[in-house]
Amino acid sequence: MIVTANTLGFDSLSLDNGATLAPVEVTYESYGELNAARSNAILVLHAFSGDAHAAGISPETGQPGWWDNMIGPGKAFDTNRYFVICSNVLGGCRGTTGPSSVNPATGCPYGMSFPVITVGDMVRLQRMLLDALGIERLLAVTGGSMGGMQALEWAVAYPRRVVSAIPIAATTRHSAQQIAFNEVGRQAIMADPNWNSGNYYGKELPGRGLAVARMVGHITYMSDDSMREKFGRRLRGKEAFGFDFEVDFEVENYLRYRGSQFVGRFDANSYLYITKAMDYFDLTNGQRSLAGALEAVEARFLVISFSSDWLYPSYQSQELVRALRSRNCDVAYVELQSNYGHDSFLVDVAEQASLVRGFLASTFEKLA
Amino acid sequence: MIVTANTLGFDSLSLDNGATLAPVEVTYESYGELNAARSNAILVLHAFSGDAHAAGISPETGQPGWWDNMIGPGKAFDTNRYFVICSNVLGGCRGTTGPSSVNPATGCPYGMSFPVITVGDMVRLQRMLLDALGIERLLAVTGGSMGGMQALEWAVAYPRRVVSAIPIAATTRHSAQQIAFNEVGRQAIMADPNWNSGNYYGKELPGRGLAVARMVGHITYMSDDSMREKFGRRLRGKEAFGFDFEVDFEVENYLRYRGSQFVGRFDANSYLYITKAMDYFDLTNGQRSLAGALEAVEARFLVISFSSDWLYPSYQSQELVRALRSRNCDVAYVELQSNYGHDSFLVDVAEQASLVRGFLASTFEKLA
Repeated sequence: MIVTANTLGFDSLSLDNGATLAPVEVTYESYGELNAARSNAILVLHAFSGDAHAAGISPETGQPGWWDNMIGPGKAFDTNRYFVICSNVLGGCRGTTGPSSVNPATGCPYGMSFPVITVGDMVRLQRMLLDALGIERLLAVTGGSMGGMQALEWAVAYPRRVVSAIPIAATTRHSAQQIAFNEVGRQAIMADPNWNSGNYYGKELPGRGLAVARMVGHITYMSDDSMREKFGRRLRGKEAFGFDFEVDFEVENYLRYRGSQFVGRFDANSYLYITKAMDYFDLTNGQRSLAGALEAVEARFLVISFSSDWLYPSYQSQELVRALRSRNCDVAYVELQSNYGHDSFLVDVAEQASLVRGFLASTFEKLA
Repeated sequence: MIVTANTLGFDSLSLDNGATLAPVEVTYESYGELNAARSNAILVLHAFSGDAHAAGISPETGQPGWWDNMIGPGKAFDTNRYFVICSNVLGGCRGTTGPSSVNPATGCPYGMSFPVITVGDMVRLQRMLLDALGIERLLAVTGGSMGGMQALEWAVAYPRRVVSAIPIAATTRHSAQQIAFNEVGRQAIMADPNWNSGNYYGKELPGRGLAVARMVGHITYMSDDSMREKFGRRLRGKEAFGFDFEVDFEVENYLRYRGSQFVGRFDANSYLYITKAMDYFDLTNGQRSLAGALEAVEARFLVISFSSDWLYPSYQSQELVRALRSRNCDVAYVELQSNYGHDSFLVDVAEQASLVRGFLASTFEKLA
């Protein structure tokens, strides 16, 4: 199934920091058909380094979408039944306005003059997209990791528009450790002289800094166990230690490869802005209790976490579940057993798919 | 108690990679008095970024040693009873020969022409130091983290010279995840243009790369819990988000501070060489079983790990304990409950001290 991305433009977007971004574009894909009642729309929200290409085959790259194992005819997000939309986030670098976009005031890319954005801003732009598509209510909002954080923001910011929410491997606010890992990535990028205060477009990219940032990320996405199974202490293309600083171990080769590969597809400034938005994210707004923040929520919830995910550990999902229960929300929670760490929601999807399928079917039924 | 470091020189040291280092110096401190029977010597081995200054007050810096809460009169390593020695490791930058030392062949610092070293090489140099001090047998070898790895290497390489071993928060070989974190640190350093293939002595230091490496390290030394308790989401010197890329959170400030502070006291090339030695470390030599590797061991063991240490998790100590037991070694194992993560062996020492005190007393008694 070949899928083409679309782009919509808007005059302006008001941001949480008080600034206005004008104009703003959003790139999205959709799968399946919107029904006549407009009641079968599902908004899928991508994680930190994802994009609008969630399913099907991209005509440009020939690659399947990042959640192609979950979205499609007969799959968990069954496109024979549901209309599934996924857009690139604000601040991204895959079609939606971000720091690499041209600032119309200067004719040059924004770079670090791009305003600092929040998860709330991302969601506000998604709402404008849905308005433009004529979709008033969402059967479900869902995503893993930062996608799950956006799903939570949706349920709180637009309670009447969200019938159900499926946050996966997510959190209601970044912990000190999560902020710390993001800060390391940012410092690695900003330490690269090619970063040049964000003015590197059309010049040499801050590739080494961005690669180091990505390497740290990859370690946190896997589990100790899955790294052992995948790499162990296996050497790379040699029978004994090299006694030099070239690659000795398979795991070193993998990290260097994934780091350098990332440089070709992701913008370093987007890395800075999107991680900052994640760190700022706090469903309680730092003021109210979590249960208080959920006061207006109307959605029913399916909350999923993974046993080996140490970056977004289960206790963070459980905090959300307790708060939802204390407000008598309809919430189902499952901790899935998986060895794949935080990546589980992308790669170990059999049980997740079956949970999502059933939850969507019952939600859709109640609605009808 | 003011303590002065001493330095001893040797003509040469044979290395595991086949090279010979000549000459070589080792800097060490000692605390307490060697008894007439020469039976009360304890060798303390430092972790990755430690040095010979384990206890007492340094006349240079006025700072206490890194294990001053464990070593001293009446403390766990009671200097009224025992003679305690600690030396800076081979490859280090605090007195012992390392990449920042002058290569006599060129008159310039070795830099990356320094030979790649192993934990076995570190221990071989320590053995030469003990020979020079006239100490044939050690009442105990001990250390946390990389110090524990050296203690294990001692017990295997020189079984007749080690009466007891106390490896703490250690492992018999680095896992893929441990190698991966070290590789990120190395890549961060080597990505800094000031690193300049290791030729930065007398020039601008690769400070930003080294700081990023250290930031990653600090996250791995703490636990999710201890970071939450110490920092949470507290902002640094502001009441609301700055919406810029200056420090927002306390944890960011802490990491940046610890990172930049490290640059003043640690050599970037030592970082590369010592992490490489840790990654190469494998008590089984990649061939024999772990139990087989322990065949000649004569020491009795006290093995300690910490519940919240996710960098050197308890299961790694337990692997060691099982292998020792399978060889009928005398081994006591305790997993201490602590929130401080890998840092526990340095900061949460009350129970650890009591275990060590009792173990040393019974070992010393048996010897007499």
